[in-house]
Amino acid sequence: MNEFDLIEKYFNWARINPADIGIGDDCALISIEPGYQLATSVDTLIEDVHFPKNTSAADIAYKVLSVNLSDLAAMGATPKYFTLALTLPEFNEPWLQEFSTSLKALAKQYKINLLGGDTTKGQLSITINVTGVVPQNKALLRSSAKAGDAIFVSNTVGDAALAWKQLQQGNQPSQSLLKQFNTPKPQVTLGQALVGVANACIDISDGLEQDLGHILERSELGAQIDLADIPLSEEVANYVQETNDWCLPLAGGDDYQLCFTVPKEKTSALKEIEKELNIKLTKIGVITEQQDFEIKGLDKACQSYQHF
Amino acid sequence: MNEFDLIEKYFNWARINPADIGIGDDCALISIEPGYQLATSVDTLIEDVHFPKNTSAADIAYKVLSVNLSDLAAMGATPKYFTLALTLPEFNEPWLQEFSTSLKALAKQYKINLLGGDTTKGQLSITINVTGVVPQNKALLRSSAKAGDAIFVSNTVGDAALAWKQLQQGNQPSQSLLKQFNTPKPQVTLGQALVGVANACIDISDGLEQDLGHILERSELGAQIDLADIPLSEEVANYVQETNDWCLPLAGGDDYQLCFTVPKEKTSALKEIEKELNIKLTKIGVITEQQDFEIKGLDKACQSYQHF
Repeated sequence: MNEFDLIEKYFNWARINPADIGIGDDCALISIEPGYQLATSVDTLIEDVHFPKNTSAADIAYKVLSVNLSDLAAMGATPKYFTLALTLPEFNEPWLQEFSTSLKALAKQYKINLLGGDTTKGQLSITINVTGVVPQNKALLRSSAKAGDAIFVSNTVGDAALAWKQLQQGNQPSQSLLKQFNTPKPQVTLGQALVGVANACIDISDGLEQDLGHILERSELGAQIDLADIPLSEEVANYVQETNDWCLPLAGGDDYQLCFTVPKEKTSALKEIEKELNIKLTKIGVITEQQDFEIKGLDKACQSYQHF
Repeated sequence: MNEFDLIEKYFNWARINPADIGIGDDCALISIEPGYQLATSVDTLIEDVHFPKNTSAADIAYKVLSVNLSDLAAMGATPKYFTLALTLPEFNEPWLQEFSTSLKALAKQYKINLLGGDTTKGQLSITINVTGVVPQNKALLRSSAKAGDAIFVSNTVGDAALAWKQLQQGNQPSQSLLKQFNTPKPQVTLGQALVGVANACIDISDGLEQDLGHILERSELGAQIDLADIPLSEEVANYVQETNDWCLPLAGGDDYQLCFTVPKEKTSALKEIEKELNIKLTKIGVITEQQDFEIKGLDKACQSYQHF
């Protein structure tokens, strides 16, 4: 099968906005309404680095789009379109069919168009570049936390890292941990709702400790958080109780949750969001003027994920 | 070195438009002036597939950005920003320094910002997603050729394919062939000049025969071209004379030239462009109502490049 047939068969879906020109020319063409900025981000997933060898095509497709959507979520942006660079060791029709079906379902759910791509031969690797729109100057930045802001995190942290640890040890994680690892839900709706409510926001894919650290660094502020307040699932709580390994939930990474800071006057607006979206939002500490990052209860800083 | 230091050191250049937020948040933010559409395209280059193993980091950087800029050129778009997904087998500082310097020089030349990226570990592979802007509804499409249009191609074809063939045979290509293979110049200025002059346009990276075929297919028209009119460098002309292998210039691929169609009334405007840009533009045939693709002088159709 040549590349054109492959794209036509597996990736040329009906477009959400038919006015735009998608796959089938040298470039895709997209119209942006005035008053909006683009938000764009790119992420690559590689076999044996970001997912184990036996991961299903459906889970790979879900995860690679989801981790990219998570970056849009962290800016408060609305997903608009993405491009896909797919490197495959061989042409495998059932794999492509499964990959395409899963990708399309998630894209439809978040109303995001696939508008371009490239397929090449090599080690299995998937790069997605996602683009969204956000009202001009309203994006949730890392750099705009204010002293006195409460620090929140969505849902729980450490579930994916625990699943990954168990897989590496040859143990089968529970369904609920595996779900966080293979098909993490991007917090797009929460991110959009936080525009005008949160001062700063980040997705904690590199781990809560490191990523909250980015907010502090870019905002030139400090924070006090308390281990006792970190939201954990029962399984991760049990793991921490048995091992005292707080670094798994704090620095294990692969958590596609949002960490964000909220000024006092927005507390009731946040309560509304929590209720309306039926999502767990936990206050874990406060932003401080003094530029220290204090984690009450933690003996020593954790080793963060190193890309090399 | 962690990813943040790596990006800070090698890829966090001064931005051309400082109003936009680049590297350093979950997403880059970009403002688009009203009245413009986005044009976006993605291309991956992989070692041993798209370039030989001993290609210099400088040449790899040049080529991967250039082949992407060529897609913008084919739409008549003005380059605006790009993202980079870089997969490296190991952390190699001199390699990164050379790659970064070359990429930055070319980006500066075409006034395009690097606004996001991801670095991962694996088989050497580089994906660039390039985005440009084009006045609303003015992009040069594949689908808008008209019967009677003259068909043109810029510069010469087959040089990169001949260089690649000689390299595979263990021979050293000439400097001029190698230049077309390693550091092909993207025809961005030509593409911009053709807006309002050409009816249809494509870049012929998959080979003139196949890519002109895309214009015909999308425009639902035919063409008559003549081998005697195909513009060849002296070296490629000699090769064809010796071997009668017309498929090398017609289907060898890796030609980052533009093939475009021009209506009669724009002939003098095209002559002006040719003079002003000091570029060789050769008429190779005409678009026909009848949906046949006739190549005068060619015995049988060539085998096109297969991605799998």
